[in-house]
Formats: sequence, structure tokens, C-alpha cells
Amino acid sequence: MIEVVGLDGDDTLWHSEDQFTEVQLEFHAMLMPYIADSLDPVAALDEVEHRNLELFGYGAKGFTLSMIETAIEISGGRVSALEIRRLIGLGRSILARPVELIEGVLDTIEELRSMDLRLIVVTKGDLTHQESKVAGSGLAELFHDVAIVSEKDEATYQRILTRAGVAPERFLMAGNSVKSDVLPVLAVGGRAVHIPYHVTWVRELVEHESSFPTLRSIRELPAVVANC
Amino acid sequence: MIEVVGLDGDDTLWHSEDQFTEVQLEFHAMLMPYIADSLDPVAALDEVEHRNLELFGYGAKGFTLSMIETAIEISGGRVSALEIRRLIGLGRSILARPVELIEGVLDTIEELRSMDLRLIVVTKGDLTHQESKVAGSGLAELFHDVAIVSEKDEATYQRILTRAGVAPERFLMAGNSVKSDVLPVLAVGGRAVHIPYHVTWVRELVEHESSFPTLRSIRELPAVVANC
Repeated sequence: MIEVVGLDGDDTLWHSEDQFTEVQLEFHAMLMPYIADSLDPVAALDEVEHRNLELFGYGAKGFTLSMIETAIEISGGRVSALEIRRLIGLGRSILARPVELIEGVLDTIEELRSMDLRLIVVTKGDLTHQESKVAGSGLAELFHDVAIVSEKDEATYQRILTRAGVAPERFLMAGNSVKSDVLPVLAVGGRAVHIPYHVTWVRELVEHESSFPTLRSIRELPAVVANC
Repeated sequence: MIEVVGLDGDDTLWHSEDQFTEVQLEFHAMLMPYIADSLDPVAALDEVEHRNLELFGYGAKGFTLSMIETAIEISGGRVSALEIRRLIGLGRSILARPVELIEGVLDTIEELRSMDLRLIVVTKGDLTHQESKVAGSGLAELFHDVAIVSEKDEATYQRILTRAGVAPERFLMAGNSVKSDVLPVLAVGGRAVHIPYHVTWVRELVEHESSFPTLRSIRELPAVVANC
């Protein structure tokens, strides 16, 4: 019997990665004139993001700083101040974008609520941005708790279980990242289901041998929870 | 009888504003050559920060983005890419700087612990950066909980009291900001003491008519708590 359902935010409840992909396309177009060889600006950006992850953490502000750093680096300092201002504008557009729920989310949340479950959002990224997404989702009242975390690892899920006062076997996590939403939850004795999004950030890709349910839509979640 | 003591992080447990002040001096020196009139680059930066606060939130990453934006704006786009890279480096130096505890903090925390109190850090800023400061402080094991919040208002303190399961009159908050650490706590029925730091960020200055103890050093805190 599941008592608490954890739900990932970005790309599980609302669209997120699409916006980064759009911005990366603009970044690519802006930098191409500065690049002589076959360097891919987006691959370079990904490397800089990776290098900065420990210091910057996840989220749109660190992403924007990494874009600026990459632009200066791969253009050999030739990118203009106005282009850098444009990059800040792109970062700002991610932060200011209204929340767009993924199809089926509202119905599913209401159905889970009717099953007498406690619902917890477990999301990572910029604190202010994630809070504004929860507020902007219109769903805030339906959640028992919102945990905005810097990393979704085993220690984080342990803390969340303790805070919720729930046994691991009565906790089920649902999200689009096998690395962040599934494997660490299984490792602490919880249950997890994978709900893939149509794009996955390269940093969230992982090889594994675990087995867990994969859903085509969040609409299948209530039935999975009921059968646990 | 106080059961739970809330402690602010930046400029209460460890030095923070000093670093921003140092970086602002470098920012000032970098921008002066671009400015013809009597404009103050740091005053301009403060305005941009204020404008960006809702979208960026508190912390070093938003501060760095605001520095870059201000530099481009007040130089009329003449600031160079290499200077912008230098600004990112300054932001990075804030994020990477080792935690330096304020004099008396370690003794005080140990004394409070011996008084059978639960200690909670209540801090705002970048999630990753605040977590790394708690970890780097060497004090993490001594705290019952760490709340990293986007804004320290009445609603935030209500949530913290609920999460700690403590009555407002048994909660005492100590910090260097009257606006963030004192007034909202008094407003929800808690107790609060002010421990001024030698510099206060302009955004944290506030006029008020409340009365509350002001300490010269955190070393005075255990006696205040004992006499509550």
C-alpha cells in the first residue's frame, strides 16, 4: 500500500527541457559565425555546464552563466557585449516563461488525491524558479509538501522519507529521469516508475540494469499506484 | 522556555557581505573608464539587482548576471568580452570561497547544543551555494535542520515552525537582518534577536518601530535564550 507519491517537476509535471533546447538553437545560430572549424557550440556548452555543475548547481541561472562563458571561450573573446546581453535575455526568457502543464497532469493529480495519498513534489534547480513554477502550476494547494533539492541522490531521498515520516516501501516516485527519479529511490528501498519525456538532457542519461515500470503517460500512474 | 533556535547563515554564522563588497569594488574599478558622467557603477548595479530580484532571487549567480547586465548597460555595450569573463570569474570566486566562520560562532553553537535546544539554520540564497556553505562550515552535524528559503517572510517562518512542530513562543530567531531575521518572526508570534554585522546590504535595511534585543556578539546569545 503506497502512502506517499513523489512527483518530479521539470518534464514530469510541466514542460522544461523544450525551453532549454530552443535556447540552445539560438545559441548555436549566434555562435556559428565565430567558429572556423567543425566545433559544435552546443557540445562545447554542454562541457562547460558539466565543468560548472558543482559550483553552479542545476537551473537556468547557472545555464545562462555557462552560455556566456562558452560564447566568450569559443569565439576567442570576439562575441559582442550586445550578443552577451541577448544570452542573458534568453536566460531570462526561461525564468519568466509561464508554466505549461504536461497533458494529463491535472486529471492525474486529482485522481491521486482522491485515493487518499499524500503528494510531494521533488524537484531540483534554481530555488526561486522552482518555487515560481510550483506557484504558477496552479497545483500548489494539491501537494502536501514541495522539496526543492540541489541533487536527487540516495541521501536526498532518505531525508525526504524521514521528513514525510513514511517507510520506503510505502513511497513511490514518478519522474522522467531514470538517473534522478528512479535509481536512487530503488536504492533506498522505495518504489519508482519512469515516465519518459520526449527529450532527455544528456546529463540525465544513464546505463542501468534495474527493472521498473515505464509509463507512456502520467495518466497511467494512478492504476500503477493502486496495484502496488 | 525556548525549544528551537533559528540561526541565519550569511553574516550571522559566516562572513558573506564582505565578499560582495570586495567584488563591487572591482566592478567599480572596471567600469569607471567607460563612464563619462557622475554615474556610480555600484548604485547602477544595485538598481539592476533590485529589478532582477523577483526573477533571479537572492544569491551569487543572480548577482553575477546582474553585474554583467549592468556592465553592458552603463558602458553602452563597450565593455569587452574579456571583461565580462572577468565578471564571471568574480562571481565564481564568491561561490568557491571557503567558508569563514564569524568569531564566537563555534563556541556559541556548542553552548546552545548543551542547553538541549534544537538548532535550525534559516538561510536564503542559491540552493547549491548555501548547501555547500553549510557543509563547509563544519557545523552541519550540530544542526537539527537546515532551511534554505527564497524569501524570509511571515509565510516562510510559519512553514518552518510547522515543520519543526514548535509553538511560536518557543522559537527564537537570531540574525543580522532586522528585515529578514527579526520583524517577520515577531509578526508570527516568535521571538527574535538582532546581531548586527559590520556591513548590511542596502536591500536588508528597513525602518521599524519594533523593540527586540540587539547583541554585540553571537556570544551573548546563550544567555538571552536562557533568560527567555
